[in-house]
Amino acid sequence: MVKWVYSFGKGKAEGRAGMRDLLGGKGANLAEMSAIGLPVPPGFTITTEVCNRYYDNDRSYPRGLKGEVETALKGIEKVAGAKFGDARNPLLVSVRSGSRASMPGMMDTVLNLGLNDKTVAGLARHSGDERFAYDSYRRFIQMFGHVVLDVEHHHFEEILELHKEDKEVTLDTELDADDWRVVIREFHAKVQEVSGAPFPQDPVEQLWAAIGAVFGSWMTPRAVTYRRIHNLPSSWGTAVNIQAMVFGNMGEDCATGVAFTRDPSTGENVFYGEFLVNAQGEDVVAGIRTPQHLTVKGKAANKSPLPAMEEVMPKVFGQLLEVRRILERHYRDMQDIEFTVQRGTLYMLQTRDGKRTASAAIKIAVEMAAEGLISQAQAVARVEPGSLDQLLHPTLDPGAPREIVARGLPASPGAASGKIVFSADAAESQAAAGETIILCRIETSPEDIHGMHAARGILTTRGGMTSHAAVVARGMGRPCVSGAGELRIDYKAGVMRVGGHEFKEGDIVTIDGATGEVMRGLVATIQPEMSGDFGTVMAWADRLRTLGVRANADTPLDAATAREFGAEGIGLCRTEHMFFDTGRIVAVREMILADTVEERRRALDKILPMQRADFVEIFQIMQGLPVTIRLLDPPLNEFLPHGEAEMAEVAAATGVSLDHVRARKLKLDEWNPMLGHRGCRLGITYPEIYEMQARAIFEAAAQVFKSRGETVAPEIMIPLVSIPKELEILKALIDEVARAVMAREGVEIGYLVGTMIELPRACLLAGEIARTAEFFSFGTNDLTQTTYGLSRDDATGFLGTYERRGIIERDPFMTIDTSGVGELVAMGAARGRAARPDIKMGICGEHGGDPDSIRFCQNVGLDYVSCSPYRVPIARLAAARAALEEAAGAAKSKMKAKRKKPPKKKPKAKKKAR
Amino acid sequence: MVKWVYSFGKGKAEGRAGMRDLLGGKGANLAEMSAIGLPVPPGFTITTEVCNRYYDNDRSYPRGLKGEVETALKGIEKVAGAKFGDARNPLLVSVRSGSRASMPGMMDTVLNLGLNDKTVAGLARHSGDERFAYDSYRRFIQMFGHVVLDVEHHHFEEILELHKEDKEVTLDTELDADDWRVVIREFHAKVQEVSGAPFPQDPVEQLWAAIGAVFGSWMTPRAVTYRRIHNLPSSWGTAVNIQAMVFGNMGEDCATGVAFTRDPSTGENVFYGEFLVNAQGEDVVAGIRTPQHLTVKGKAANKSPLPAMEEVMPKVFGQLLEVRRILERHYRDMQDIEFTVQRGTLYMLQTRDGKRTASAAIKIAVEMAAEGLISQAQAVARVEPGSLDQLLHPTLDPGAPREIVARGLPASPGAASGKIVFSADAAESQAAAGETIILCRIETSPEDIHGMHAARGILTTRGGMTSHAAVVARGMGRPCVSGAGELRIDYKAGVMRVGGHEFKEGDIVTIDGATGEVMRGLVATIQPEMSGDFGTVMAWADRLRTLGVRANADTPLDAATAREFGAEGIGLCRTEHMFFDTGRIVAVREMILADTVEERRRALDKILPMQRADFVEIFQIMQGLPVTIRLLDPPLNEFLPHGEAEMAEVAAATGVSLDHVRARKLKLDEWNPMLGHRGCRLGITYPEIYEMQARAIFEAAAQVFKSRGETVAPEIMIPLVSIPKELEILKALIDEVARAVMAREGVEIGYLVGTMIELPRACLLAGEIARTAEFFSFGTNDLTQTTYGLSRDDATGFLGTYERRGIIERDPFMTIDTSGVGELVAMGAARGRAARPDIKMGICGEHGGDPDSIRFCQNVGLDYVSCSPYRVPIARLAAARAALEEAAGAAKSKMKAKRKKPPKKKPKAKKKAR
Repeated sequence: MVKWVYSFGKGKAEGRAGMRDLLGGKGANLAEMSAIGLPVPPGFTITTEVCNRYYDNDRSYPRGLKGEVETALKGIEKVAGAKFGDARNPLLVSVRSGSRASMPGMMDTVLNLGLNDKTVAGLARHSGDERFAYDSYRRFIQMFGHVVLDVEHHHFEEILELHKEDKEVTLDTELDADDWRVVIREFHAKVQEVSGAPFPQDPVEQLWAAIGAVFGSWMTPRAVTYRRIHNLPSSWGTAVNIQAMVFGNMGEDCATGVAFTRDPSTGENVFYGEFLVNAQGEDVVAGIRTPQHLTVKGKAANKSPLPAMEEVMPKVFGQLLEVRRILERHYRDMQDIEFTVQRGTLYMLQTRDGKRTASAAIKIAVEMAAEGLISQAQAVARVEPGSLDQLLHPTLDPGAPREIVARGLPASPGAASGKIVFSADAAESQAAAGETIILCRIETSPEDIHGMHAARGILTTRGGMTSHAAVVARGMGRPCVSGAGELRIDYKAGVMRVGGHEFKEGDIVTIDGATGEVMRGLVATIQPEMSGDFGTVMAWADRLRTLGVRANADTPLDAATAREFGAEGIGLCRTEHMFFDTGRIVAVREMILADTVEERRRALDKILPMQRADFVEIFQIMQGLPVTIRLLDPPLNEFLPHGEAEMAEVAAATGVSLDHVRARKLKLDEWNPMLGHRGCRLGITYPEIYEMQARAIFEAAAQVFKSRGETVAPEIMIPLVSIPKELEILKALIDEVARAVMAREGVEIGYLVGTMIELPRACLLAGEIARTAEFFSFGTNDLTQTTYGLSRDDATGFLGTYERRGIIERDPFMTIDTSGVGELVAMGAARGRAARPDIKMGICGEHGGDPDSIRFCQNVGLDYVSCSPYRVPIARLAAARAALEEAAGAAKSKMKAKRKKPPKKKPKAKKKAR
Repeated sequence: MVKWVYSFGKGKAEGRAGMRDLLGGKGANLAEMSAIGLPVPPGFTITTEVCNRYYDNDRSYPRGLKGEVETALKGIEKVAGAKFGDARNPLLVSVRSGSRASMPGMMDTVLNLGLNDKTVAGLARHSGDERFAYDSYRRFIQMFGHVVLDVEHHHFEEILELHKEDKEVTLDTELDADDWRVVIREFHAKVQEVSGAPFPQDPVEQLWAAIGAVFGSWMTPRAVTYRRIHNLPSSWGTAVNIQAMVFGNMGEDCATGVAFTRDPSTGENVFYGEFLVNAQGEDVVAGIRTPQHLTVKGKAANKSPLPAMEEVMPKVFGQLLEVRRILERHYRDMQDIEFTVQRGTLYMLQTRDGKRTASAAIKIAVEMAAEGLISQAQAVARVEPGSLDQLLHPTLDPGAPREIVARGLPASPGAASGKIVFSADAAESQAAAGETIILCRIETSPEDIHGMHAARGILTTRGGMTSHAAVVARGMGRPCVSGAGELRIDYKAGVMRVGGHEFKEGDIVTIDGATGEVMRGLVATIQPEMSGDFGTVMAWADRLRTLGVRANADTPLDAATAREFGAEGIGLCRTEHMFFDTGRIVAVREMILADTVEERRRALDKILPMQRADFVEIFQIMQGLPVTIRLLDPPLNEFLPHGEAEMAEVAAATGVSLDHVRARKLKLDEWNPMLGHRGCRLGITYPEIYEMQARAIFEAAAQVFKSRGETVAPEIMIPLVSIPKELEILKALIDEVARAVMAREGVEIGYLVGTMIELPRACLLAGEIARTAEFFSFGTNDLTQTTYGLSRDDATGFLGTYERRGIIERDPFMTIDTSGVGELVAMGAARGRAARPDIKMGICGEHGGDPDSIRFCQNVGLDYVSCSPYRVPIARLAAARAALEEAAGAAKSKMKAKRKKPPKKKPKAKKKAR
């Protein structure tokens, strides 16, 4: 027979913490605390299973529930020494919802249930405090009225306010028992008026109404929406917790409080909490009275004038310290607890894993591992990878004053102050002159790269989280606020206006890329600290993970940053950013404007030494680690300017007519450049470009090898392959160049030639492509665009609507869409591996730094992920967690398999890609 | 033991016509003719298998070949009564290559092999014609020298010319035996000089050298390239045919000729051919002498002054007529034959299925079926669907004089003459005034649709086979020449220039969309005839096919054309073309410029009655056949004009400021509109647009039903779904509108709601989408673009290079890419069907009218294809052939299965979709 009700109390419990699915989080932890002997008021939990039956059977309860509730209630009565509905010594209970995951939008709490016009007198007598009893009754009517009977709060508040006006008092505490009697009468009348029925006097009726309200709250629109957004199944259901009331408001020897077993902000191993004397839980939340600190240390740190519990209730404090010790030993994690002291006796009302900041999470994890409470693997699993983002960038000094003038999107984390400029060139020249610059643009384009790089931060008035500015800034680790639509930039006038403010070039602003705020003037920032604990957790993570972690780095600076953050190579070095460099753009444009192969070759000959020098520097920094270099990808048009004036400049600089520039520009214009003449299509039509790039790579590798004796491991990557033959032709070209350079230089260079898998067709034909490709790098940015038929530049116009309406749950450019794009990646990986078992496979692009996407990469069996340098630590941690989860999953299915079938073959051993 | 050589001759043969793979086409048919008793000079065929062995074993012949050749040669000697290399009565042979498919680039023929300085005297004696013998010898040296010894033609020609100059004659026929003796000596010297060895005198050596040359020609670059382009495997190999020589040039009782058993141009059942008296085959090809007709009728029809064979060689002609009869009975198809008459005796040298025009193919197929030679299914299989294109459009009168001024791409078939105009508006207004118009544009955009529709033909100077102009013109059945780059259009001046010509608005040009030619002035055209035979074949095809055939039709005119061509419904009715109509574009623009939902609704209210009227007309024309209506698809920006002047007009017409128009235009501007805010994304963000369209559809259906009692079967199609929820939301919206309209009108309308499957993600998630979608229409145009990451508008810049370099074999926008796009379609179809077994599935877009793509649709099990009205007959025929092929394949695999395994379950029965 199914058991519907689980009792706890007096050092015993029918449930345990592990039964969270059945009892909800709160119920399971109450049972656990009771079972390990902590002082928990007696109570019971109605299971989540009842919730499901309730909805499956047209909102009726399963047979047998009633009897079990009656029995459990008797159990409470026995422990509490009071009787439910007893006029002399009435048992009062609280009723609370409690699902598997904490979930706003559901019924919270009804306290003091069991009071009515008769039992209130018994409570008064038994507690010896008439005011307390009637205050408790009116609170109950308010809560029950609102939560169960749908009588809105304001009805009760109005009555209360009027009464206080009549009495000419301002505080509730100034009202006495008789006042409450009057108020209660008026509450009763109001309930009758609004709900059409008298306030229920029968405690049993009260109880079932409250239980029904909890179950009913599971399906309110707010709860349903919340679950849909967070992808929580309705089938989880909610439990109902019914527990004997204890009172923190029966006098000066009573109190109620909340605490964390360690400091949730810093992670320091100190007891951290607050309490209120003579108060109920809701008073703490209401924030009317200033709470007192638990410890003397805490009191001192916060310069509180009020005494600490350690001082005023030393005995209870001692008990609480012991509870803290027991809970941490028991749960092996920092706990967030609620307690009540009733007439000098401590009662525990809740415990759960405490929320914490990223740095606290790291400190706690490392210290608990040192204390032997948890293993290193568990420590790693305790730190949320995404949360590290806060730690890797400068942040605003929380104490510094600030004047916010506008808000945009938090496009790339970190805070930065500097002089504003309105063009990339100005950013570059002024930064070169030693200024700290914030580049302000309506929107950015690839032509602005050098200015974005020179700037400390980027601010745009148009574009979303995935606009050019946002994506590039994240890649570079520059703080960025995008789409700050209130700002108006007038390039001609050289001003930026918002509200009444006007900013000229050279004025100082501060941007916070973590909040999207734009502030006038300089706001102090705090530099990130890579503390010892951070390093410790990272080292543990590195030992646990099987996925390699590389960085996307286009410049020597990026490469150096990547190394600092622990990247094991470069997974994507985009060569086009090198082309935009002011020193070479003229030659690049000459190349584009050339009419013949010979002219093009002459221009390329000028670019060759510069490109070679880039690679020399990057190879030196990477000291033999693999460097994946992507040959030219964007359409050539991106290298030509838009405006007439700029075109005239280009004409002058390259020595051709303006008409020629215009004509070429027009010829290169494309309807959909994303789907146009780019990637390897350039390599096929202008083989001399790829030839020059390959030459630069091999000559650089030879030079580094000869001058420093360091082996260089270039991995040359061909972008946008959709037809196997494209890769065949271009690999032949590269091999040819490699042979020629190696023969001339007299060196042997180990290199690979592979491809981006970034188009659906490449995934489908991965088997054929892998016959030529020595590695795959899944370019999931473009793959997401083509799989969805969705340009991320253009999606900002409607993706907001899509998210609001729940059509998409997560931006597919941030977290990989496992059901669509993911299936293609999995297919590509499997087919590639089938054709070439030792093929190296990674992912580059935004997803490479996203923890959920990294889990996906682990499951699909890739060798490495590559992400922006600033996300490398996140990726290292996420990879470790993914490996742990996979191992746990494998162990689980192994156990299952043992029980069911002969054991399957072991999951393929993976070695860390370097 | 493997047999390498197959002999034939004297009414016997070791091979048969069915052994084409082993003997090549020519060899198999020689054997067949010999076996059925036709007069074939004796000979033998060395198999294609020898060719493969030859290349597998480093160009050496398999053991045993030599002996088999010797034996076979002895067989020829016996039948021919002459001996190879015999000085008195030498046997001469021809050596010819012959592969499975006719293949240019390979060695053709060496005649008269076996002649040398000695045997030539024997030939002279035996033939009694010295001049003939020495002429034959010098011909042999020329051919052998060129083909086998690599001595180029011009060496021989020069000698010949010099000798004729010496003798002061102009014709070869004026040289006598002594002259040839001199020439032969000089030929010998030249061969020695160029090849470094004397001309081989040993006939056996000659024979093996010629055999080696045939096998060698299989791997020449030209042959290899040809095979790669036509996707022919190298493993097919070539056969070598060695056959006793017969001579058509031994005197006036000799002749050589070619014939078709029916007229290959008209298909008429008349004997059609030409011959030359006293000539060898090469003389016919050389075209020096005018050939004579075989029949008196042919002579009369061609007004030939020369007598017909029927007159001058009545006996041989009678034999030839009998051969014709036998061959047609035997091969059951029109034959293309070669024959030689040697001293009054007829010899057959070749027979093969004759090439024919589309109309001839139809006539021959229908008549042969009537004669009982072939079945109706065979008749249908005899007509190449793609060839019908010639029959469905007006063509230039072949006899009419023409002055070609430029050439572009043959973008849409058909010929048209008319006055030129340079804008869509001018095209529309002048067409309305009764003029016949050719619209000339640099390129076209969706704004030009009304002008393209009004014009008789379209000419652009930019854009490829898949440019907007080309695609739309094909869809509309308008002739179109695109990308005629030599033409320069100056819109401002209102002129079009090319070379020295200048055309003003109103000047007349003629375009031929089948050849890409642009001509000055009017060139007479011929209207297509849907002859009785055409109709007969179509009716047979309709009975055989299982795929439904619908048309893409946006207007009542299109719908009417579609019905005429036999469409069984509309598979794609694009509603956006209706929006461009001059009468409504103002309201459409008001809708786009609206700032609020209310304003938008007001504008939509104006469009509603017009849109409803469109549907009423289309529903009436389609008389209850299904009509698939796609709701608005293109980005809204397409409805706003580009130029400042036009924007000002729009501002005036819609009553908003020019700034507002500019701002909206800018806001709607997209980097990659193809991947932007379009399709169902419009429906989600502006539900009122789809709501209006749905209302127009259901109100139109109700009106038609009420006024004419006709059931209307609208199938409402949501474009660009990538997320199942998009469809769920929009289907709910449409169902809601349907309920409301049906309730108000008091009618029941049967309708379906489905979706375009045109994005990779839609294919992957087809199972989930099919839970909501009642039909799928695969939009393979967009699916090809996203699967390849290739915009068809922008691909023209490099697809040419891709085709030239053999990177792609066929334009994937013309014929579906089965390995990439096709896999997605197959996956989408399978997953859709698994989720909803009765789901209706079709294809729309360019591929729906391409025979190879239709075969793919048949294999994947779609229910119907939809194509432009003008391709409907092609699709009907292609569908029939695909069904026949599938049935044949099924029968084959059934037989195989019977032999190997227990029988598989029957292929799923398909019923014709209507």
